[in-house]
Amino acid sequence: MKILILNQPPKLVLGAGALEILITSLKKSHLRRLFVLADPFVAAKLKSIFSPFVDIDVKIEITTGGEPSFDDFNRVVAIARKHKTDAVIGVGGGSVLDLAKLVASLMDAKEPVQSFVGDGIIKERSIPLICIPTTSGAGSESSPNAILIDPTDNSKKGIISSVLMPDAVYIEPDLLSSLPSDITAYTGLDALTHCIEAYANVNAHPVVDLYALEGIRLISQNLGRAIADGKDLEARTYVALGAYYGGLCLGPVNTAAVHALAYPLGTNFKIPHGLSNALLLPFVLEFNLDYALDRYASIGMAMGGDLSLHKKAAAKQGIDLIKKFIENCGMTANLSGLGVSIDDIPKMAREALLIQRLLKNNVREVKLQDAISIYQNAL
Amino acid sequence: MKILILNQPPKLVLGAGALEILITSLKKSHLRRLFVLADPFVAAKLKSIFSPFVDIDVKIEITTGGEPSFDDFNRVVAIARKHKTDAVIGVGGGSVLDLAKLVASLMDAKEPVQSFVGDGIIKERSIPLICIPTTSGAGSESSPNAILIDPTDNSKKGIISSVLMPDAVYIEPDLLSSLPSDITAYTGLDALTHCIEAYANVNAHPVVDLYALEGIRLISQNLGRAIADGKDLEARTYVALGAYYGGLCLGPVNTAAVHALAYPLGTNFKIPHGLSNALLLPFVLEFNLDYALDRYASIGMAMGGDLSLHKKAAAKQGIDLIKKFIENCGMTANLSGLGVSIDDIPKMAREALLIQRLLKNNVREVKLQDAISIYQNAL
Repeated sequence: MKILILNQPPKLVLGAGALEILITSLKKSHLRRLFVLADPFVAAKLKSIFSPFVDIDVKIEITTGGEPSFDDFNRVVAIARKHKTDAVIGVGGGSVLDLAKLVASLMDAKEPVQSFVGDGIIKERSIPLICIPTTSGAGSESSPNAILIDPTDNSKKGIISSVLMPDAVYIEPDLLSSLPSDITAYTGLDALTHCIEAYANVNAHPVVDLYALEGIRLISQNLGRAIADGKDLEARTYVALGAYYGGLCLGPVNTAAVHALAYPLGTNFKIPHGLSNALLLPFVLEFNLDYALDRYASIGMAMGGDLSLHKKAAAKQGIDLIKKFIENCGMTANLSGLGVSIDDIPKMAREALLIQRLLKNNVREVKLQDAISIYQNAL
Repeated sequence: MKILILNQPPKLVLGAGALEILITSLKKSHLRRLFVLADPFVAAKLKSIFSPFVDIDVKIEITTGGEPSFDDFNRVVAIARKHKTDAVIGVGGGSVLDLAKLVASLMDAKEPVQSFVGDGIIKERSIPLICIPTTSGAGSESSPNAILIDPTDNSKKGIISSVLMPDAVYIEPDLLSSLPSDITAYTGLDALTHCIEAYANVNAHPVVDLYALEGIRLISQNLGRAIADGKDLEARTYVALGAYYGGLCLGPVNTAAVHALAYPLGTNFKIPHGLSNALLLPFVLEFNLDYALDRYASIGMAMGGDLSLHKKAAAKQGIDLIKKFIENCGMTANLSGLGVSIDDIPKMAREALLIQRLLKNNVREVKLQDAISIYQNAL
């Protein structure tokens, strides 16, 4: 067995009542000056959640939404510093949690946030950090990653460090129920893609396989229900758990070609990350097929496929089930329908090829012509 | 889904080279006065492991072996305090790790250790804690539990707290390879029992099921290899991972009747804990059969059984595979062969019935006459 280093949140509280447990724990703690960073759409709920405090000074900051930049970080950390914050609570999707993770980690930092771009540059977190996901996709609550947009070149910069793993994750189904069905679908397919790409990956590891396959099972069984009825709290909870597992896969193994090829769709066409992944996933899987027969076969079985098939038929079944699942989630779009033309492809392919930190994980080498073909197939 | 609170080590390093990663991380840390508590049989290896330090003052204390008492704790914590220890590293089986967990947690405590017996009494850990398991059984490295013997009545007292979860777990196969085959078998079956009793449990939870079933898979596939050839490091690593998963099950769900009935065998006859579990497991499973058909069926499938069986036949297959597995691990003893006579049973049954904290988890209520019957069947 290859050596594994797995970072994970020391505490996971999952299910209806999670927030009550958080409130009780905060009241008992030494913390006195909380900074809560939240998504706009949970703003109304936050007051009732954080109103019971008498002795704790809670500063609530609602983000502007969208993917955060270095400038957003600077604005938010200044507020947190002014508040003399002693703990950060992020309540939101991946963008909000990424920002909250960085604020807690860099509260005391002297250097600009730009200087922490890369892997393992942040050595210690300044103050405690709690993450409360309100979408089920990015898995930021259980990953060591944070992504910020660099305004100088409009590119996404990754800050990766084990200290970005929160001290505790609280998954409260009630906070998940108001997510619109289209965002539920995009984000859920993003989480599914994390699991699929970590499971069929040159760095795959038995410990991560466990989370990846369970994430595939949970999302494939429950995402359709959560899309059809956002108030189905059981389905919401299972999808959230699947996304948490997907996040755990990102640190030790990470994603591969789907994510690398998806990035240019986000930066050039503002296509939501989960949707970009969903559009490309079938075509990358077909490209990989012969290089991951056993893995795709296992994915098919985890998705409820016929257990009697073997080798290539079983692997094809895996891909077919994923395709059908994406369609059933309402994702019938293609790239041209979203404004991408054939002339855009060479530039996107060149940009994708730069993301070798993910492409090197792919089970089959992706060359420039391969990237072009995959985009063409997805057009 | 029922609400879940899962505590887990924030860092797991697993595989050959884990100790090198630990050494590198210690050298980079602020820690300067380490206290290493270790099992006698790894004593020789410790010097070479902890010799590379120049700036760190390492105090190594070798335990006397056996199950630790309040007195052992007092002796060891006094040494750690005198050393002005700033971090504790436990290297050993469950007994050593339990002691190390308590030393790190109670370094600064004013009250005697007796006053922390119970669940959640320790609120904060004094200093960092690292656990390096050298047996694959108790799962102390991933559980919130520590057990000490109370010399006043010779009973086992449990101290349970989330702060007893270590900051990091390092599983180094090389340290597992010298464990004798009989202890490998007992401890491995203890770990298997943790997984089985957590999976078929009135408090079973999907998050814990994942660990429990994977633990069953890993141990059933690898324990025989580790017993046959202690130097089979791959098998050792998988069994250690199974034991780690078993430990994770103990906090949120815990064990049930097998463990409750096993305790009197330990206190009255000094039968090793894993052996006590192995001797009782088949008979408790038979007692439970009709109350856990689906669960025992799934266990059978996780152990490689015939997938086409249904309901009672599938559940029986699960029990039969467990029985056969215990035999294949060389456990052919019965209670009478270990000095237990029929006259001892009523007293043991009464003692077992006192352990309601575990019996209440059992899928079928265990009355006094039931406990007597189970012991008689195992005689």
